[in-house]
Amino acid sequence: MGRVTVRRPVRKLTPNGDRRRLDTLAAEEPLEIRISGTPLAVTMRTPGHDVELAHGFLLSEGVIGAKDDVTLARYCDSVDDTGRNTYNVLDLTLADGVPMPDVGVQRNFYTTSSCGVCGKAALDAVRLKSRFAPGDSTFTISPTVLSTLPDALRQQQRVFAATGGLHAAALFTSDGTLLAVREDVGRHNAVDKLLGWALLANRVPARDTGLLLSGRASFELVQKAAMAGISLIAAVSAPSSLAVELAEDNGMTLVGFLRGESMNVYTGNGIE
Amino acid sequence: MGRVTVRRPVRKLTPNGDRRRLDTLAAEEPLEIRISGTPLAVTMRTPGHDVELAHGFLLSEGVIGAKDDVTLARYCDSVDDTGRNTYNVLDLTLADGVPMPDVGVQRNFYTTSSCGVCGKAALDAVRLKSRFAPGDSTFTISPTVLSTLPDALRQQQRVFAATGGLHAAALFTSDGTLLAVREDVGRHNAVDKLLGWALLANRVPARDTGLLLSGRASFELVQKAAMAGISLIAAVSAPSSLAVELAEDNGMTLVGFLRGESMNVYTGNGIE
Repeated sequence: MGRVTVRRPVRKLTPNGDRRRLDTLAAEEPLEIRISGTPLAVTMRTPGHDVELAHGFLLSEGVIGAKDDVTLARYCDSVDDTGRNTYNVLDLTLADGVPMPDVGVQRNFYTTSSCGVCGKAALDAVRLKSRFAPGDSTFTISPTVLSTLPDALRQQQRVFAATGGLHAAALFTSDGTLLAVREDVGRHNAVDKLLGWALLANRVPARDTGLLLSGRASFELVQKAAMAGISLIAAVSAPSSLAVELAEDNGMTLVGFLRGESMNVYTGNGIE
Repeated sequence: MGRVTVRRPVRKLTPNGDRRRLDTLAAEEPLEIRISGTPLAVTMRTPGHDVELAHGFLLSEGVIGAKDDVTLARYCDSVDDTGRNTYNVLDLTLADGVPMPDVGVQRNFYTTSSCGVCGKAALDAVRLKSRFAPGDSTFTISPTVLSTLPDALRQQQRVFAATGGLHAAALFTSDGTLLAVREDVGRHNAVDKLLGWALLANRVPARDTGLLLSGRASFELVQKAAMAGISLIAAVSAPSSLAVELAEDNGMTLVGFLRGESMNVYTGNGIE
């Protein structure tokens, strides 16, 4: 996990002077995901939990739906200038019967010409694509328990504490237990890592868990949750209009501005 | 500009009770960018300044380098359920002699199989691709002037003030003037809108301006600045490791944690 952070010299200007010291940065490196040797996508991510990230990405894109859909995951021999493996190329093998995704699929599957024309079309595409309808879930949580979660998440954000530069996300149960916490320079990666964790733990569809976000809730993140059958999302910051629309359309609960004992419930019946 | 925000009912839970009221959300809608009718990319953005966004996106991707490289930009007739134009599909016509980009180009050009294998390869790809070497710039700014900019930006973040849900970015001159401010649910879009503004104002390569970011500085944002010839970036929050590496490699100045009179200068000689 040494590459999760990077130490660099920095010039620090304050009212008290101008000095040099070492600073800790959140590591950002490209991860290339391949299927049977064919490059599928590259994401800029914080190294660590790459196998989870790849599984979560494929789940989000509708390529896989269960742990057994992937039979092998291994790093390729990609080397840097000094001949060391970069661990930045991960090759996955799909099980027999799992269709190979179109090569050249965009980072987000809604970026195709057939949809994305208007919000409604994108929403329809998601609804069609998800194998696990979150709307079937009866997952609920009390506001009192929910309000304890941001602090619990912050205490587990080790890299953020060191760098101030990472998004975090967590899966939680209705009694307020954080099942898994992931950090990344990209919030979509943090969520993909969580979804991969859930898939590898045979917890997908994850109808018995909620998703906690350290920042804002966008369309893309709600979509990812929907693809994993998660029915409740709680974000510390604001949701976008389309995030709320998609959540509502899928029967999900979306909470925003979860701060102290206050929160906004934008849609859904999961808070009681 | 009515669609920049959306009003929705929200259930507001606080220690003082549970009530319903109207809330203002940052609008998020897909924008499909087409070249002569062929879909090139879809980005989830806050409506507004779409023509700038498309120009900035094409500049960032190395497709165009000047205003005259695009001869026409117009919205297609994409309609929603009620038959109204969504203004979510924008079609651009390139000038004679400007090569058509590969259809299916990824959102970020480094997401191809030929690069992205390790950080170094991605950096090399950027260096090759930029027509405007930021390293040639002599743009400098004093820490005193720079420290006034986050407050000036915040005063112009109208949608953020209403929603708490938007990233902002600005272009500024060395005397501390904000030339243009753009907000978006996606920080890459906010920067693309600025770059498009600069291109349309014949200010690219933008060697005489700095780029101010309301949040973090990632590889992708530094890369966009480099593609426009911008040599100084100041971010209110943390940079990633690869953002600093790329800035250093291009002779750019990268400032992070610009707060009050304090700041971290990670690389470059632009602060004096």
